[in-house]
Amino acid sequence: MNELTGACVFAQSGGPTAVINASALGVIRTALDTGCITRVLGAAYGIKGVLDDKLYDMGSEETDELELLRNTPASALGSCRYKLANPEADATDYNRILEIFKKYNVRYFFYNGGNDSMDTCNKISKFMQTAGYECRVIGVPKTIDNDLYGTDHCPGFGSAAKYIATSCAEMWHDAHVYDTGMITVVEIMGRHAGWLAGSAALAGLTGCGPDLIYLPETDFDMDRFVQDVSDIYEKTGKCIVAVSEGIHYADGRFVSEAEVSATDGFGHAQLGGLASKLAHIVKMKTGAKVRGIELSLLQRCSSHTASLTDVNEAFQAGKTAVEAAVAGATDKMVAFRCTRGADGYRCETVLEPLEIVANVEKKVPREWINAAGNGVEQPFIDYVLPLIQGEAKVPMEMSLPRFARLKKVLATP
Amino acid sequence: MNELTGACVFAQSGGPTAVINASALGVIRTALDTGCITRVLGAAYGIKGVLDDKLYDMGSEETDELELLRNTPASALGSCRYKLANPEADATDYNRILEIFKKYNVRYFFYNGGNDSMDTCNKISKFMQTAGYECRVIGVPKTIDNDLYGTDHCPGFGSAAKYIATSCAEMWHDAHVYDTGMITVVEIMGRHAGWLAGSAALAGLTGCGPDLIYLPETDFDMDRFVQDVSDIYEKTGKCIVAVSEGIHYADGRFVSEAEVSATDGFGHAQLGGLASKLAHIVKMKTGAKVRGIELSLLQRCSSHTASLTDVNEAFQAGKTAVEAAVAGATDKMVAFRCTRGADGYRCETVLEPLEIVANVEKKVPREWINAAGNGVEQPFIDYVLPLIQGEAKVPMEMSLPRFARLKKVLATP
Repeated sequence: MNELTGACVFAQSGGPTAVINASALGVIRTALDTGCITRVLGAAYGIKGVLDDKLYDMGSEETDELELLRNTPASALGSCRYKLANPEADATDYNRILEIFKKYNVRYFFYNGGNDSMDTCNKISKFMQTAGYECRVIGVPKTIDNDLYGTDHCPGFGSAAKYIATSCAEMWHDAHVYDTGMITVVEIMGRHAGWLAGSAALAGLTGCGPDLIYLPETDFDMDRFVQDVSDIYEKTGKCIVAVSEGIHYADGRFVSEAEVSATDGFGHAQLGGLASKLAHIVKMKTGAKVRGIELSLLQRCSSHTASLTDVNEAFQAGKTAVEAAVAGATDKMVAFRCTRGADGYRCETVLEPLEIVANVEKKVPREWINAAGNGVEQPFIDYVLPLIQGEAKVPMEMSLPRFARLKKVLATP
Repeated sequence: MNELTGACVFAQSGGPTAVINASALGVIRTALDTGCITRVLGAAYGIKGVLDDKLYDMGSEETDELELLRNTPASALGSCRYKLANPEADATDYNRILEIFKKYNVRYFFYNGGNDSMDTCNKISKFMQTAGYECRVIGVPKTIDNDLYGTDHCPGFGSAAKYIATSCAEMWHDAHVYDTGMITVVEIMGRHAGWLAGSAALAGLTGCGPDLIYLPETDFDMDRFVQDVSDIYEKTGKCIVAVSEGIHYADGRFVSEAEVSATDGFGHAQLGGLASKLAHIVKMKTGAKVRGIELSLLQRCSSHTASLTDVNEAFQAGKTAVEAAVAGATDKMVAFRCTRGADGYRCETVLEPLEIVANVEKKVPREWINAAGNGVEQPFIDYVLPLIQGEAKVPMEMSLPRFARLKKVLATP
């Protein structure tokens, strides 16, 4: 038995998701219940909390209140977007982290984040090894964009997909209330990968999906887009289009940054988002009544449409991280290995080496997008559908969501 | 007993809500189960369906499918925004309606809509009386804006309020993820009345509400607004502001139409909505990181945050309309009379004369808004809170909402 006794630090990183705190609970609850982990410290605002020596004593929190983390959206301990330099270039932050780890006898570090965070984990772990300080480092995956390499999918994605599909189905109904023509452009998150935009297609399973979906994995062609939309609009008087915020031209320019309004020939940057810009262009060319809708940040913080599958898997990912580290693992990311066979969807947590996963983006396979580049194919549907299953029930108070209210007591050594 | 045998026509009008089809079910189900109503006809796209002789035979629908209307958002029979002229000015449409009513022996007309629709009901009823054609006309109230006079509140409002409060609570969490400064401006529906914008305050009951709320019942002052926001931002580094889309200057101009971007000195109309315009202005003056969010049409079609109280009341309003008409009532609107006393919230359906309710807008009482005009007082909270109670459970299929799929069989006489 490879028993290592000491404190653990848990930190959240990067953008929030609807289930990021379910992972936090998985780590915190499991760590609090583990004998060899002497203290559970939560970093205030991610890795900055470690650098600033601002660590919360998670043992001070009420059990019932911690449990509410399960359905609380958006990084409850706070987060930051801070990418550590290469230690060879500048070891300042690493030395500081080591100093803090020594101060609190931290022997376990759990970092919950996306690509950049797995890179950070990797660098920290290597540094600790070089410094001869024993510390087990495990990354817990997270991102609504679903672009982490090495795992079937990421916690956070299933709930965002469920939000998008549900909202699209509702908006479809709204769009069909009047018998007058209407073109709706819906902007969905996802700067580099189209996992989220593609999820709009799930609404099509109940007959209420968008007519066209544009993902960033294919080059965007404005003329082709307008033609696609016009063709459908001519036939039915309606068209609903989902676009990823990351759609770009063949030369790489993001459409959202490249486009100026046809009415503003001076090249002044528009305040409107991508959806309203595209809606405007379509209006100029077709004369149709149009509207642009930005799904906005509710895609990543809507706990009321969280997928129960996602919540449970996010929790499990955190739990597995702690159990694996206590059993001796380090330099790993918890990943999901899944099958979608005749006996249904199965998901198990495994460990992947951090070097493999860090800094590689996983995009939607080209063959999962249709030839025309304006829709997704059945394999995409088969892949996403199991991830949105089940409705997570948010505890309510006065019929308003009852989210976790942590005391956040700062620890002293 | 005042028994009147004949067909009934039910039509939906104006903008949709999350519970408009619960009212439809209340009318349709009750009418189908009533012996003296020989046939239940649903107008395709509102009053236009009557004018175009496009009426669906609701008796052709499956009972189970009709039941799904209860949780299906957005006018399932279709709607239109068509205001009939005064019959003295132009009786064409009225003559046509009478012709259609005679063709199908329609003796009951139920019209589900807001202000304009109650006016339409009134005009149609008077015309039928003048023409000597017996037809009982009852209006069923509807609007997310909650501005119908003569009723405690309107079906549709409670669910929209619940959506807004829930979303604001979630966005509050998202806004507090990073320790860097952030000002969030949230745009909420409501062109003339601030019932919806004020509902954002409910999120404050759980400590996650906006700092400032601006309703259209008070005049907007841009300098005062920027000062209010800056003051809070200076103190805490965060500020969340909710604004009604209908905020206007003292001279009556809507802020959304009056404002041009500070970067665009040429007066070119911006594509961005009110939220992004205000966010931009605040950014110019404070240098803060800002974001503008439009809650958009999900406020009116989000079935997944529908209030069970609202669903039940909407259904009851439809049911009462039919029962009252069969018992002899006409020229009435179903209204809610409510008490919020020591024994809790009570709501009963009553009948109000159509003349009283038509064309009068009910706004938020000035004394329910704070003196500074940037928040609401306790009476507002006490008024709205009972309306959002209970979570309506939407039937799911593959964990996607299972909405009603009507056959929509056109009737022949």
